[in-house]
Amino acid sequence: MSLVHPPVNGRLSPHPAPHLNARVRKLKLVIAFDGTGFHGWQSQPSGRGVQDAIEQALAALFPSQPRLTASSRTDAGVHALGMVVHFELPAAELRMTLRHLPLAINALLPREVRVSHAAQVPPDFHARFGATGKQYRYQVWNHPAMNPLLENRAWHVPRPLDLDAMRRAAATFHGTHDFRAFTSNRGTLLEDPVRTLRRCEIRRSGPQLTFVLEGSGFLYKMCRAIVGTLVQIGEGRFPPDTVARMLDSGDRQTAGMNAPAHGLTLWRVSYGRP
Amino acid sequence: MSLVHPPVNGRLSPHPAPHLNARVRKLKLVIAFDGTGFHGWQSQPSGRGVQDAIEQALAALFPSQPRLTASSRTDAGVHALGMVVHFELPAAELRMTLRHLPLAINALLPREVRVSHAAQVPPDFHARFGATGKQYRYQVWNHPAMNPLLENRAWHVPRPLDLDAMRRAAATFHGTHDFRAFTSNRGTLLEDPVRTLRRCEIRRSGPQLTFVLEGSGFLYKMCRAIVGTLVQIGEGRFPPDTVARMLDSGDRQTAGMNAPAHGLTLWRVSYGRP
Repeated sequence: MSLVHPPVNGRLSPHPAPHLNARVRKLKLVIAFDGTGFHGWQSQPSGRGVQDAIEQALAALFPSQPRLTASSRTDAGVHALGMVVHFELPAAELRMTLRHLPLAINALLPREVRVSHAAQVPPDFHARFGATGKQYRYQVWNHPAMNPLLENRAWHVPRPLDLDAMRRAAATFHGTHDFRAFTSNRGTLLEDPVRTLRRCEIRRSGPQLTFVLEGSGFLYKMCRAIVGTLVQIGEGRFPPDTVARMLDSGDRQTAGMNAPAHGLTLWRVSYGRP
Repeated sequence: MSLVHPPVNGRLSPHPAPHLNARVRKLKLVIAFDGTGFHGWQSQPSGRGVQDAIEQALAALFPSQPRLTASSRTDAGVHALGMVVHFELPAAELRMTLRHLPLAINALLPREVRVSHAAQVPPDFHARFGATGKQYRYQVWNHPAMNPLLENRAWHVPRPLDLDAMRRAAATFHGTHDFRAFTSNRGTLLEDPVRTLRRCEIRRSGPQLTFVLEGSGFLYKMCRAIVGTLVQIGEGRFPPDTVARMLDSGDRQTAGMNAPAHGLTLWRVSYGRP
């Protein structure tokens, strides 16, 4: 998509491609947000998508009103520390250094959303199709009384959990599997349901559990289905060795519940060699 | 203070002391709160002290309307994970197990305040005078852009910090000192200004710094003055070896700024041998 030299009468602009590209900048932003008050990442008719907030800020800075392409679409209530997006704009519109760009955008954003980093990327960079790895973290507060400092950040699980059983089950998710039983896509699954999980570990610090999920990519609601199932295993609802059967079944009905959205954070997205 | 047998006509109740004590229960509660919306711990005419919220909940459960004695008084905006309080009530009023008491109180509290633990303590237990150690933690987010997930939980310090210099300075606070230069008491200091810091360390995880301060006790705003001074040392405003001179001076004017309240959390209070 060229923002400077649209084809005239169906013919291409007279400028050769390299020259044209020099007049278009492709930029990458790293974005953190508290998802509590938003209807998820994606633009909404309500205007309460995180994407809407950032595109409104960009529109105030850049006349070409850039649209964002994001690495991931997060659900309502899900947070991010390292969401990656890209956008293009005419080089002439970028009148500040890339170090100042986050400050300029942040000055126009609500406090719940921050741009932590901006960089120029090559024309073939793509925030979504170029991502080679994603890490999500999920927080659980496992104590009869919730920790008020983790309100909207962690799932409160009051019943005692068998961490050993959960860790044994978590190891089963490791590797390459058909994750059809752990996604909420209705009807025919259009995408390939095979994903590779490189990490599926549970860290503990007192009553606080942190699930670290890292992989090549994730199906819709896959993180929340994995965490929900592991917590139900910790509660004794399923035996730990049931995960292999759930994966084999390919049936969402056999797996456990979806953990609530507010415990989940998109931690980072990686590009380049996995 | 007896809540069951007040002296009649100035004479003591006919029951001997041990019998009397058996009719009074002294209970200890551990309390966590998000201090953002409160005017500090202590009861306020506004009713927006954390203490007010808990005493109102207790008044709905116990006709004797117990008043709390707390280990510490935290400033407006300061949080707690392990605040300790005690109160007394007639044994006959306690009609539930101690395991259920936190649930009953929490059902009557705003979500920002939670009782995490309740226990019966001996008559000579005192939440404030019996405390032998306190740990505070202070969070700083050291990056040009704030982390929105730490809003109201961490102090945003955008400028780069020299962590080595800060750690050298932190070591100087270790041990027993006159901390008069690090307290905001106005006029004559009524309490002994000598305190012992057993820990004064700075942990780092990416842009997140956690100051762990542990000691026999803390003067008014002492934690915030120590952290504020260490951050200013990290910014190059004072050399690290200046802390010894600040301590020696006994003059609040020589030390650094108070770090803002919202980064501070009362982490735990200990009783018994230090």
